[in-house]
Amino acid sequence: MVKEGNFTPAIILVAPQMGENIGASARAMKNFGLSDLRIVNPRDSWPNKAAESMSVGAIEIINSAKIYDDLEDAIKDLEYLYAATAARRDMHKENILSCDLPKDAADFSKIGIMFGRESSGLTNEEISYANKIVTIDTDPSFSSLNIAHAVAVVSYELYKNHAPKREFEMIDELVDLEQKNHFNNQLIKKLEDTGFFRVPEKKEQMQIKIRNLFGRIDKLSKTELKILYGVFNLM
Amino acid sequence: MVKEGNFTPAIILVAPQMGENIGASARAMKNFGLSDLRIVNPRDSWPNKAAESMSVGAIEIINSAKIYDDLEDAIKDLEYLYAATAARRDMHKENILSCDLPKDAADFSKIGIMFGRESSGLTNEEISYANKIVTIDTDPSFSSLNIAHAVAVVSYELYKNHAPKREFEMIDELVDLEQKNHFNNQLIKKLEDTGFFRVPEKKEQMQIKIRNLFGRIDKLSKTELKILYGVFNLM
Repeated sequence: MVKEGNFTPAIILVAPQMGENIGASARAMKNFGLSDLRIVNPRDSWPNKAAESMSVGAIEIINSAKIYDDLEDAIKDLEYLYAATAARRDMHKENILSCDLPKDAADFSKIGIMFGRESSGLTNEEISYANKIVTIDTDPSFSSLNIAHAVAVVSYELYKNHAPKREFEMIDELVDLEQKNHFNNQLIKKLEDTGFFRVPEKKEQMQIKIRNLFGRIDKLSKTELKILYGVFNLM
Repeated sequence: MVKEGNFTPAIILVAPQMGENIGASARAMKNFGLSDLRIVNPRDSWPNKAAESMSVGAIEIINSAKIYDDLEDAIKDLEYLYAATAARRDMHKENILSCDLPKDAADFSKIGIMFGRESSGLTNEEISYANKIVTIDTDPSFSSLNIAHAVAVVSYELYKNHAPKREFEMIDELVDLEQKNHFNNQLIKKLEDTGFFRVPEKKEQMQIKIRNLFGRIDKLSKTELKILYGVFNLM
């Protein structure tokens, strides 16, 4: 796990062509708590209007992005560098899956992940700067990801393994079993009074089914129980 | 885990506004082995040129997408439905994180995940059709994801838990320890011959450091070892 309180992986876009993808990548980074964006040789001039408009709420990441002419400059402060690309059969380089990235990167305090140009990815020379290749676990028959999707998935993977796991609480107060049983008893009594159990030998089975049915409503709230009383006109 | 050989979760886009996002969602679906795309009330007419052009290689998913006027129609064959949205404090509905989705969905043979409109997400009424809410694990202070990013992350999470885990093999033949030791011995002998170990009492320590240094190159291939011999002019 990336060390708590020190979660600053760098995202390095190498020769990106579309400003829209830079903006969308910045937005995804912010969704997953990242902020260190580096861009090597963007095709279009910088600042870039399309990048700004696609960043939607992550404009500060675009504004603080660092632009480099040279990959070596962009990575010089990093301890460990990953090249995000489909598996390469033409290089003798270690390859991990994206799901193993957080564990693999756990020993380093400052990592970077570089992503290649939209048209043709990273060159072999660029990949040779990386310590390892990280491959997003796609269908092997269609492995070419949109660059911002790739940034989103890698950032997501790093974030969810770093952030303390969120717990969701239901806000409404829940009923206890006594309240649930009271409802079931009232319902069965009302059904009895209105002649619902016409076949006496099936009455017990039917009662069990009804108790099972309403018992299965998990995490029933007091408000919902009131609605059930209302629906059956039991109050 | 979603059952092997039966991996057909439906992605349901509710009232999407931008064709580009529909296309990008289709591409992400194909990256992660999904194909069942359903669209409820797209803002623009269908077929949609922007969707087609952004789908890049996933055009068959766009062409086979089903279009509905009504959410109820779009979901009627599903066994279990998730609403993808940030946590909602105003609904009494069970909420899980995206990382728990594969496990949560494991018992169902046909699930769907619905995603809301870009501007305002899903309405409470739409969410009321879902069995559960699934929330992508974002930084809570910036939880609004691009819709195609959300589709990508959810599809990724389902795919990587479904597909058999890929193993990467290094293609070049690796050296064994005998070959590595031979190189180290040759190198140390050459350094001795050229007077590298000037301080006799440090010689043994220095040899250990050199052996450690080259020993640490993991998964050294025969080709790479040849290069090392060449670099040190040892052949």
